Amino acid sequence: MSSNSFGKLFTVTTFGESHGPAIGCVIDGCPPGLAIGAEEFRSDLDRRATGRSRYTSQRHEADEVEILSGVYQGRTTGTPIALLIRNTDQRSKDYGEIEQTFRPGHADYTYWQKYGIRDPRGGGRSSARETTMRVAAAVVAKKWLAERHGVRVRGYLARIGDVVPQAFDWDAVEQNPFFWPDAAQVSAIEDYINALRKSGDSVGARVNVVADGVPPGWGEPIYGKLDGDLAAALMSINAVKGVEIGDGFAAVAQRGSEHRDEMHLDGFTSNHAGGILGGISTGQAVVASIALKPTSSILIPGHSVNLAGEPVEVVTKGRHDPCVGIRATPIAEAMMALVLMDHALRHRAQCGDVGAVAPRIP
Amino acid sequence: MSSNSFGKLFTVTTFGESHGPAIGCVIDGCPPGLAIGAEEFRSDLDRRATGRSRYTSQRHEADEVEILSGVYQGRTTGTPIALLIRNTDQRSKDYGEIEQTFRPGHADYTYWQKYGIRDPRGGGRSSARETTMRVAAAVVAKKWLAERHGVRVRGYLARIGDVVPQAFDWDAVEQNPFFWPDAAQVSAIEDYINALRKSGDSVGARVNVVADGVPPGWGEPIYGKLDGDLAAALMSINAVKGVEIGDGFAAVAQRGSEHRDEMHLDGFTSNHAGGILGGISTGQAVVASIALKPTSSILIPGHSVNLAGEPVEVVTKGRHDPCVGIRATPIAEAMMALVLMDHALRHRAQCGDVGAVAPRIP
Amino acid sequence: MSSNSFGKLFTVTTFGESHGPAIGCVIDGCPPGLAIGAEEFRSDLDRRATGRSRYTSQRHEADEVEILSGVYQGRTTGTPIALLIRNTDQRSKDYGEIEQTFRPGHADYTYWQKYGIRDPRGGGRSSARETTMRVAAAVVAKKWLAERHGVRVRGYLARIGDVVPQAFDWDAVEQNPFFWPDAAQVSAIEDYINALRKSGDSVGARVNVVADGVPPGWGEPIYGKLDGDLAAALMSINAVKGVEIGDGFAAVAQRGSEHRDEMHLDGFTSNHAGGILGGISTGQAVVASIALKPTSSILIPGHSVNLAGEPVEVVTKGRHDPCVGIRATPIAEAMMALVLMDHALRHRAQCGDVGAVAPRIP
Amino acid sequence: MSSNSFGKLFTVTTFGESHGPAIGCVIDGCPPGLAIGAEEFRSDLDRRATGRSRYTSQRHEADEVEILSGVYQGRTTGTPIALLIRNTDQRSKDYGEIEQTFRPGHADYTYWQKYGIRDPRGGGRSSARETTMRVAAAVVAKKWLAERHGVRVRGYLARIGDVVPQAFDWDAVEQNPFFWPDAAQVSAIEDYINALRKSGDSVGARVNVVADGVPPGWGEPIYGKLDGDLAAALMSINAVKGVEIGDGFAAVAQRGSEHRDEMHLDGFTSNHAGGILGGISTGQAVVASIALKPTSSILIPGHSVNLAGEPVEVVTKGRHDPCVGIRATPIAEAMMALVLMDHALRHRAQCGDVGAVAPRIP
Repeated sequence: MSSNSFGKLFTVTTFGESHGPAIGCVIDGCPPGLAIGAEEFRSDLDRRATGRSRYTSQRHEADEVEILSGVYQGRTTGTPIALLIRNTDQRSKDYGEIEQTFRPGHADYTYWQKYGIRDPRGGGRSSARETTMRVAAAVVAKKWLAERHGVRVRGYLARIGDVVPQAFDWDAVEQNPFFWPDAAQVSAIEDYINALRKSGDSVGARVNVVADGVPPGWGEPIYGKLDGDLAAALMSINAVKGVEIGDGFAAVAQRGSEHRDEMHLDGFTSNHAGGILGGISTGQAVVASIALKPTSSILIPGHSVNLAGEPVEVVTKGRHDPCVGIRATPIAEAMMALVLMDHALRHRAQCGDVGAVAPRIP
Repeated sequence: MSSNSFGKLFTVTTFGESHGPAIGCVIDGCPPGLAIGAEEFRSDLDRRATGRSRYTSQRHEADEVEILSGVYQGRTTGTPIALLIRNTDQRSKDYGEIEQTFRPGHADYTYWQKYGIRDPRGGGRSSARETTMRVAAAVVAKKWLAERHGVRVRGYLARIGDVVPQAFDWDAVEQNPFFWPDAAQVSAIEDYINALRKSGDSVGARVNVVADGVPPGWGEPIYGKLDGDLAAALMSINAVKGVEIGDGFAAVAQRGSEHRDEMHLDGFTSNHAGGILGGISTGQAVVASIALKPTSSILIPGHSVNLAGEPVEVVTKGRHDPCVGIRATPIAEAMMALVLMDHALRHRAQCGDVGAVAPRIP
Repeated sequence: MSSNSFGKLFTVTTFGESHGPAIGCVIDGCPPGLAIGAEEFRSDLDRRATGRSRYTSQRHEADEVEILSGVYQGRTTGTPIALLIRNTDQRSKDYGEIEQTFRPGHADYTYWQKYGIRDPRGGGRSSARETTMRVAAAVVAKKWLAERHGVRVRGYLARIGDVVPQAFDWDAVEQNPFFWPDAAQVSAIEDYINALRKSGDSVGARVNVVADGVPPGWGEPIYGKLDGDLAAALMSINAVKGVEIGDGFAAVAQRGSEHRDEMHLDGFTSNHAGGILGGISTGQAVVASIALKPTSSILIPGHSVNLAGEPVEVVTKGRHDPCVGIRATPIAEAMMALVLMDHALRHRAQCGDVGAVAPRIP
Repeated sequence: MSSNSFGKLFTVTTFGESHGPAIGCVIDGCPPGLAIGAEEFRSDLDRRATGRSRYTSQRHEADEVEILSGVYQGRTTGTPIALLIRNTDQRSKDYGEIEQTFRPGHADYTYWQKYGIRDPRGGGRSSARETTMRVAAAVVAKKWLAERHGVRVRGYLARIGDVVPQAFDWDAVEQNPFFWPDAAQVSAIEDYINALRKSGDSVGARVNVVADGVPPGWGEPIYGKLDGDLAAALMSINAVKGVEIGDGFAAVAQRGSEHRDEMHLDGFTSNHAGGILGGISTGQAVVASIALKPTSSILIPGHSVNLAGEPVEVVTKGRHDPCVGIRATPIAEAMMALVLMDHALRHRAQCGDVGAVAPRIP
């Protein structure tokens, strides 16, 4: 139960630093017999990759997944599945100033205070590079969830700065580099981000994730609630500062008569709850939102201190994401998939005999 | 690592149903030698109790904590501390309709779908009654944190429906039944809640929690981040639909130049991050907010179905909280204290030798 | 995952000191729908109880189990099952010398070195009194295992001092106070123990435990092997100094041609392996043995030191078990049942879809 | 807390199959600042390696450890340490009969029954090849234990078949390929093993492991006892059928007056307990023994069944260890070191403030 592991029964342990030799993960607890091949990782890793388009960081990561164990003749064997990606950008360069400086808004200072060790290589372990392995592990989870339960997990960018979608279309989401659900706004967003890049500044974002097909009954009260585990999973993504389930903070101003989702024999009237009541799935879509802060790696100088205890001015040179929230979309999907996968197994461990009981709201 | 346990090293396992014989908890991992007496639980339990004032549910719970183990001659021994509270309101009454009906917005339907068993006694395990034991366990955590590290955890109601505080004073918070930080608004809030009660409806709320004195270095990347664990802890509270750390969702519309907290030798300029960077505490105040939905137990009829698969109309009779968010305040404090306690021990396990390294922002 | 919890999915947390107010446990993860009543605990608790006969300690413990939660209308609900037993022998007496002295062979000195706190009440947490709750929790596990899988767990005393059974009959085991499988030797053992008691000394014992009906496939390589978990479970019983699976230490002198259990279509030829290969059950009987040391609570004076750092001579007054190994029999059964229960759930979590595959050795 | 992970706070997750692309491990929870280099793994890996001498399996494994993460400039950073060893013997050969046959005494049949998948490559995950990574991980643990606490863990072969040492000398242990403590017997053991090999049979062994320098106070009652965790750790080693602490099964025939270790101000009189009382270390040497069965991979034909459900006769061709117990010696050391490392961290988490209390037996 180490802190680099996620999940109780479908347990993913990640390792690796941004600019170290490699990153990887070990998936323990995957059911045997699932067909999986190295080529199935490419699509989601590409979606996550910086370098996908010029609207996220221009760094190019050619992520080739090697399956080291746990798969034989194209099927999972029930033993740990280890995935490895070599870092191609691993330069033993001189990190110079960065090595000596605590960048404001980054984890440099807190890692130093915790560990007394400064690993300056591209943010080291705190880099979003680590999320690559979450996305990879979730490819396995997504496939099992889809095959066994018909579960589908999808995300989209729901806001960038002050811009919100004026229309919604799932088909649009995958047809632009922003995971934006309103095709008509895409060029405006391009302009918005280009302007941000020129100004050297960054902006926050909101990402929504939705899982369809989740059966009722997943989630374990009290401290393994589905929403509790989702909150932990999503908050663990770099730059996330807030998590909502269903209506989230909008519920603060709602009346009970408005918020509660009434039930009819042919379904729920609404889904303010986001598909979870008492920590257990209702059978409706599971809906979560996250808030991503604007990256602190910007070209505008900021004040900080260095290792020598002197005041310094910091500018982040090189690669620059004006909005890290964009590529958080597939990461958020991954985390929701990992949570659902874990709970699918947990549910059948304790309640495998119960099955779907009547009456069941469709 | 069961789902009714919370915390990795300071592990609290709760048990008990709302109207069963008793509720209780087992605290495992408490350091030995801490002075604790049964009388020390009263204050926080009173703060949490329904019945504290007529503005929350009128049910009166005379919660007497019995220490069953783990304390000898007034000091913790290092063995498990079991706390027990007998339910005085345990009536073997006829639950009648409730037993047969799934109340909308409640966990009735999801528990049924998960377990195939219907325990109608006052909401059973899904009742907020369970949180009593979190508050009790946190009394131990708060005391250790205060004695060893000078940590203080405090919460307040930051919004109820559309009402937000116009002023802020910690001293005011404990002097009114709403944990409201603006004394001038207290009577208006009384009127607001009375009107709600008359209308038979309910409203949501926002609660903020702040921990002062947390040293830098607590929190474990990647999946044991301090903010990730806080998110899980706070989301596990009944009726919570959202969690924010620091600026939370406000960060969506912020620029990087605005959000990042600059560092100077004499301190941070701001605390947009809420005291956490990269999942590790910065040494600033740790700040979190939660959104609470309006309770679904209202006098306004709602549609649902019953166990026989028939459509029914539901009205919640009896006790009624117009705003459950009010008493969530001490519960949110408790959960933050439990998370911090756990991380204090986790930090000294791995990094006990590191200590505070220079330079350290005061 | 605290150290007073046992089991990953069927998790039992015990609490309580020997002479404190109460002992108890919380069972988390029990499948819902199992019929269980307070009266079902009596039989196994009586078997374990000191005071069962004059051949074990004469202390009388009237252990009444109260079910505090997790059961509604006689069936488990899926929520935590808390069991409580009040200590009737809880006297706030003066422990006098014992409080100041470290008894040789006991945990007095090690608890003091670990916790810096001395709880002298009857051995406190280190007393075998704690095992009462293991036996209670195992009643639930045994029932589920029997109903769902036809598993039966039984133990017997396989040696006391130099005496070994000359015949074996399961029926005999429950018809004498020693769990001895050879009825013809029972009166000789009475004499043996009476002589021991007169001499004020004690002797060790060996207990065997056998589970019939375990299907093939339970156990999780590598660090959750069925034999590994059994070893931990059995070694955690007070006074146990050794654990064997199948032939155990006898395998040291065996040849491979002798030890390996050949397979035929109608079954295994032998069961040297004790029903486990590669950490996974074979479908044969699961067989384990434990070695119990002679209790150190004897009337013969021994040398030790006291809290003041002075040399002292210690004699254990009062109640005295000449052979603690006898009552370890139901405790060993309990631990094997808890391990099997946990693995039954773990197996269906990961491999629930696999089912029994052909060919299957009957 | 997956089943391929070991340790609660110093958590080692291993992955990889015998003849797959690679084996590896992730160490999570290592304290930061420990100096470690890839070259430090060679010595213990060589000691474990088959091919060390002609007296164990002749297979040659050129195990080169690559450190993938968690170390920067030669020091641990506190982040996960991933170690990788490529399998040089990974041939995509035709496993022919083995693929279709369940070898008696092996895990072939049980893995098949559990997972429904047959990975015939050299025993797959059940091969002792996996223990390579335990030894590697323990190199890190041993170093930290030695530097911080002066703990030294050593093992030796205490019996092979019917041969027991007639003398004991730690220096002799590392000067012969059998870890045998009596130099005078080494050539006789050579003859013994050669004769075994010629006969195509195998024999069991006993290995003893001793840890010096363990301070009093390590170990967590009740279910995290030091001896309980050692039992699980040692029983998880391939071919182990029994575990003893201290006198182990010899205690069955002992008297209490003989077994209990009396305490004097200048030390304990004896160490029958093996350095553990009540699950907590006493400050004496921690002593454990294991029984290893004779390998089932022998040249003498045995009966079994195949995947088609037909009776077959099995002969294990190729490499052949007449006594797998020999190379279990460094593996047993590794497991004891991992347990002690974990408990060192667990102890300082809960009881870090207690320190050594007086009086302390030297």
